[in-house]
Amino acid sequence: MTPRDVVARILAGRGSTPRAVANAYAPANIALVKYWGKRDEALNLPVTNSLSISLGPLGSHVELARGAGAADAIWLNGEPIPAESSFARRASAFLDWFRPAPDFTFDLRARNTVPTAAGFASSASGFAALVKALNALFGWDLPPREQSILARLGSGSAARSLADGFVEWHAGAAPDGMDSFAAPLEATWPELRVGALVLCAAEKPVGSREGMRRSVATCEFYREWPARVARDLAELKTAIAARDIAALGTVAEGNALAMHALMAATRPPLVYALPETMTALHAIWAARRDGLPLWFTMDAGPNVKLIFTRAAESQVRALFPAVQVVAPFASPAENPPPAHS
Amino acid sequence: MTPRDVVARILAGRGSTPRAVANAYAPANIALVKYWGKRDEALNLPVTNSLSISLGPLGSHVELARGAGAADAIWLNGEPIPAESSFARRASAFLDWFRPAPDFTFDLRARNTVPTAAGFASSASGFAALVKALNALFGWDLPPREQSILARLGSGSAARSLADGFVEWHAGAAPDGMDSFAAPLEATWPELRVGALVLCAAEKPVGSREGMRRSVATCEFYREWPARVARDLAELKTAIAARDIAALGTVAEGNALAMHALMAATRPPLVYALPETMTALHAIWAARRDGLPLWFTMDAGPNVKLIFTRAAESQVRALFPAVQVVAPFASPAENPPPAHS
Repeated sequence: MTPRDVVARILAGRGSTPRAVANAYAPANIALVKYWGKRDEALNLPVTNSLSISLGPLGSHVELARGAGAADAIWLNGEPIPAESSFARRASAFLDWFRPAPDFTFDLRARNTVPTAAGFASSASGFAALVKALNALFGWDLPPREQSILARLGSGSAARSLADGFVEWHAGAAPDGMDSFAAPLEATWPELRVGALVLCAAEKPVGSREGMRRSVATCEFYREWPARVARDLAELKTAIAARDIAALGTVAEGNALAMHALMAATRPPLVYALPETMTALHAIWAARRDGLPLWFTMDAGPNVKLIFTRAAESQVRALFPAVQVVAPFASPAENPPPAHS
Repeated sequence: MTPRDVVARILAGRGSTPRAVANAYAPANIALVKYWGKRDEALNLPVTNSLSISLGPLGSHVELARGAGAADAIWLNGEPIPAESSFARRASAFLDWFRPAPDFTFDLRARNTVPTAAGFASSASGFAALVKALNALFGWDLPPREQSILARLGSGSAARSLADGFVEWHAGAAPDGMDSFAAPLEATWPELRVGALVLCAAEKPVGSREGMRRSVATCEFYREWPARVARDLAELKTAIAARDIAALGTVAEGNALAMHALMAATRPPLVYALPETMTALHAIWAARRDGLPLWFTMDAGPNVKLIFTRAAESQVRALFPAVQVVAPFASPAENPPPAHS
């Protein structure tokens, strides 16, 4: 089963006549219980469920139209992107699965409001927005579940960027991955805040795809990762239902440290923490010992995301003046203006 | 089975008449494959084997004599130690198992040449030297195996400080721990060097005994720790036999990171790395990428120990001017003078 087969199955009986232009937006997301390890590399099928929070106004806008040229034309944040760049090649390779005819090309204009310098991955929101734009351009009217599956084929965590709020990606068990999609939880939490600390914008020495592969292949501890995730997921859902920030923060922080532990116990070891990372973590722990209800999570990189509620926001801003704060469930007026526009 | 029962069994038929005074020395040791987790708390029986290198002139001197007073009199580095201090209480509690009569007291003068400020534990060399001094004071003439078992009752890693060079502590399986002792490997390696970096002399927030207990009880990954240790031990012995510093360094560094991974995945998490720790690790990795054959290990704390050979020593000293270097297999003339004397 290839990604192309999955696309063909999902689009069977759907139209292939594009309208003039389609626009879409999808939020970035940050996992509170992490995705680390694939059971199928080609289809981006994960070993475990994961659960994220979508980041409202931080995400990706995509404008998509039938192209006029012989090749795709791609812009990022207003700049034309060379076809040989990794960004353009990855986008065109994904679009290959959706061309109604071999010579069909696209004009793709992507604009990120997610600050990639703060270590927020834009591939999740980018592929999710691209799937939404394809769905609108061709008028497929796909259900959210099928859109999540298509986004997953572009980037695993993109499966979680089709919806707002808390989103759970179900690992599924089917070899074709038709049961591996993400869906939002019912819960809302208007007081919840996520903060991004800009510590290091450098390229990661080892990317997530390669890192996951190494952990699954060489890390003894990986055998216990599914048990860890199962317990953390149950605790996280209880915390969300109770709007208990201490319980949510504790499970998110512990799960992130456990994922970094998997990486460190991989052969050869993967260590993403920088001195600045440890400075931030120790500052968070010291503030918490002093009574500030503040926790963190980290993805596969050196950057730190803060987890707190509105009640702690002014103290968090005092502690980390450069923090960028998002209110995932608040109205646009309560959220910051996008970084690019 | 209590420690007192084990002592009684080992000393059965041995004398209890002290000579005037006895002197002993034991080296500190640093584990290359770590000890983390007990199967018996009272007897300090470990879950897995571990393998260390003894640190030659860095260790503990003990002078032991029958006391004149009604209570033990204890000196550390020339200073009298109050009986209510944790050092004196721990020493006297250990000596309780060895008093020929309830009113028998000891005069104990301990002197450490191991720089505790560099994060070398002095409890291992201290209890090993104390057992050697008891053995000499009472003329027991105990075999090394029994001395290792007695030292283990004071502090687990003290079992490894009875011998020089590479020392393996066999976990054993017997409930009474009579098969849980350390013995030296045959191998020598005159070129081998160990360096201590002084990063932080602060007290650890959570000690090893409590940390191990938490990992065994709460860390899913701990279930795979014995498999990890078994593989690392096999690779380490191969590296030692071949005097392959790259292989030894790789396994030691990986095992130390895996132990810190266990700690980080414990509930609540145990994170010992400080910003200074990460600065040192990244400096080591950068130097290695530039061709310097340099690796590290870390115990349950923020400090870093360097692993290299004589060929790299001048470059290592240039990179870390404050490093304290030990040559575990070299003559005393090649080693540094003790920190205290």
